[in-house]
Amino acid sequence: MKIAILPGDGIGPEIIDQAVRVLNTLDEKFEMETAPVGGAGYEAHGHPLPEATLKLAQQADAVLFGSVGDWKYDKLDRALRPEQAILGLRKNLNLFANLRPAILYPELAGASTLKPEIVSGLDILIIRELTGDIYFGQPRGVRTAPDGAFKGEREGFDTMRYAESEIRRIAHVAFQAARKRDKRLTSVDKANVLETFQFWKDIVTDVHKEYQDVTLDHMYVDNAAMQLVRAPKKFDVIVTGNMFGDILSDAAAMLTGSIGMLPSASLDANNKGLYEPSHGSAPDIAGKGVANPLATILSAAMMLRFSLNKAEQADRVENAVKKVLAQGLRTPDIYEEGTTKVGTQQMGDAVVKAL
Amino acid sequence: MKIAILPGDGIGPEIIDQAVRVLNTLDEKFEMETAPVGGAGYEAHGHPLPEATLKLAQQADAVLFGSVGDWKYDKLDRALRPEQAILGLRKNLNLFANLRPAILYPELAGASTLKPEIVSGLDILIIRELTGDIYFGQPRGVRTAPDGAFKGEREGFDTMRYAESEIRRIAHVAFQAARKRDKRLTSVDKANVLETFQFWKDIVTDVHKEYQDVTLDHMYVDNAAMQLVRAPKKFDVIVTGNMFGDILSDAAAMLTGSIGMLPSASLDANNKGLYEPSHGSAPDIAGKGVANPLATILSAAMMLRFSLNKAEQADRVENAVKKVLAQGLRTPDIYEEGTTKVGTQQMGDAVVKAL
Ligand SMILES: CC(C)[C@H](C(=O)O)[C@@H](O)C(=O)O
Ligand SMILES: CC(C)[C@H](C(=O)O)[C@@H](O)C(=O)O
Repeated sequence: MKIAILPGDGIGPEIIDQAVRVLNTLDEKFEMETAPVGGAGYEAHGHPLPEATLKLAQQADAVLFGSVGDWKYDKLDRALRPEQAILGLRKNLNLFANLRPAILYPELAGASTLKPEIVSGLDILIIRELTGDIYFGQPRGVRTAPDGAFKGEREGFDTMRYAESEIRRIAHVAFQAARKRDKRLTSVDKANVLETFQFWKDIVTDVHKEYQDVTLDHMYVDNAAMQLVRAPKKFDVIVTGNMFGDILSDAAAMLTGSIGMLPSASLDANNKGLYEPSHGSAPDIAGKGVANPLATILSAAMMLRFSLNKAEQADRVENAVKKVLAQGLRTPDIYEEGTTKVGTQQMGDAVVKAL
Repeated sequence: MKIAILPGDGIGPEIIDQAVRVLNTLDEKFEMETAPVGGAGYEAHGHPLPEATLKLAQQADAVLFGSVGDWKYDKLDRALRPEQAILGLRKNLNLFANLRPAILYPELAGASTLKPEIVSGLDILIIRELTGDIYFGQPRGVRTAPDGAFKGEREGFDTMRYAESEIRRIAHVAFQAARKRDKRLTSVDKANVLETFQFWKDIVTDVHKEYQDVTLDHMYVDNAAMQLVRAPKKFDVIVTGNMFGDILSDAAAMLTGSIGMLPSASLDANNKGLYEPSHGSAPDIAGKGVANPLATILSAAMMLRFSLNKAEQADRVENAVKKVLAQGLRTPDIYEEGTTKVGTQQMGDAVVKAL
């Protein structure tokens, strides 16, 4: 089985290195091929998602992705900016289901800005639709307003849209995920204002008929943002659209205070997937050897589980991560008094050793 | 000067009663006229925003609004549901500037789910554009997809749009508000994905030329949601669009743990405004005499300041609220051991007495 390795920018290469070491430590051996993406893709081939990189990702059984982005590309045309690579990969590989666990490891409860009783033991799963919504809807652009109160003026505009089958397939993923957990699904919408999300709510309600063992409730996005702050542990699985999911999954990740620990998976209909840490490229600490590689290592574990069908190996990696936490090893982002501060490489060493 | 009083549904009438008592206690006397809105409007006249109610709101110098909504209206057609009243008022009265302070009173620091050091002394102002964006953009609806990968299927769709002058006017409000505070403005967008918000960012940047004494920075909405959880006190004034503002202002309010304390103002170009508490209609506690009237009383204070030009009276009301807090009086939503639990009416009594 073949894995495409796309390190990207900022801390991407450093953290990917450690995940690759971990994969190489497993009994199972994988073919891996590396290609540049994001700013690195632009430097090498003039485009954030070079053709050869896309091809590699398409041919591989799974993609392990570091992170993209750096201030130095801010002045480029939008089409050439690093983030376009991630949007292009999602769209071209049909990665419509983004799974983002927000888990607070007991050892790291102190890292959260929330009171321990509110977040300790937090374990929620946010499922974000990833190839539809206002992210890709056409038409979009800047034009002369064709109608309305500002007719004739310049305006920026975008189209939010969701087709029935797009909603059905992400709803199925969400109900199935809930079934494997506490059997509670919250569908987040803005049906009181948006036609797209009234439609979303209706379709999710219809799909629910096939999953009567799962409890479904509907929540407006503004209320969901509040409830995540007020009582996040009340959620089990949340499913929502691309735009709302972007906001809520980041908010949920930050609740844990340890976004450096959180992996993510973006899957297509056949469980082929792209795996990446939930945090960004952090150009301010790139090259300093202090980045936390654990989110990327845990992303590799998700890859083993979902795309490579190696659940046992996935368990091993996840247990190794728990072990190094229990040993008190911490990169600076999760460091607390009384623990041992280590760098990226040492953290990788420790996980390899724990395996 | 004339104030339109729209109590609405749920706890709306109870909390409005107390705010009206407070207004009647001031030296200045105001003409007040009450009309039904939301579910109450529907019951009385078959529409959440009856014509006579809209007319009253249009003729008045300011509108004091309770809250709308009740589960019993969930089955109505969307156009008849209570929330449509608030959207109709905003649009018809051109209330494009929504000011939502998120303030944590020192006495209430314990009510927050966040650690005291993260939120104590929190004082940020969120300015949400309120009459544009995807809330009102046309076209919208459910249709057969005209193009794209799902052509021919049923799809829900909406249009996000912002015209140049809409962005300019809210940017001016935001820069001017920042000028009166700590002179720091954060414009929240999603310029890396949305054409509307790249346009937004460009226009806000242009308006900034007229306010060189104010520091402007730009932040993506997903990052803003994270930073609100991570370090909310770093913000001074936030300005954003209608949809992002809906989500972020509620998240920010919930950070304080005391949304029952937070007022809001929605202003037109001439500082005519609608004033309402940031919390909802809470039908579960309606009629029990336990709702917190302070957000509504503080909304009346904002009304005195912005629309009625009575800054001194506004100060008096705000100081009276601070006084009852200092006296240890608490409605159940903000009650903590060691304080005195009171009901809606008693809280109103205390504010009146403090005046
Ligand atoms: C970089 C950006 C386009 C992207 C998104 O908005 O989806 C990011 O925020 C994410 O969540 O992966
Ligand atoms: C009730 C709803 C239409 C409204 C909105 O989305 O604007 C509410 O959430 C608010 O923020 O006032």
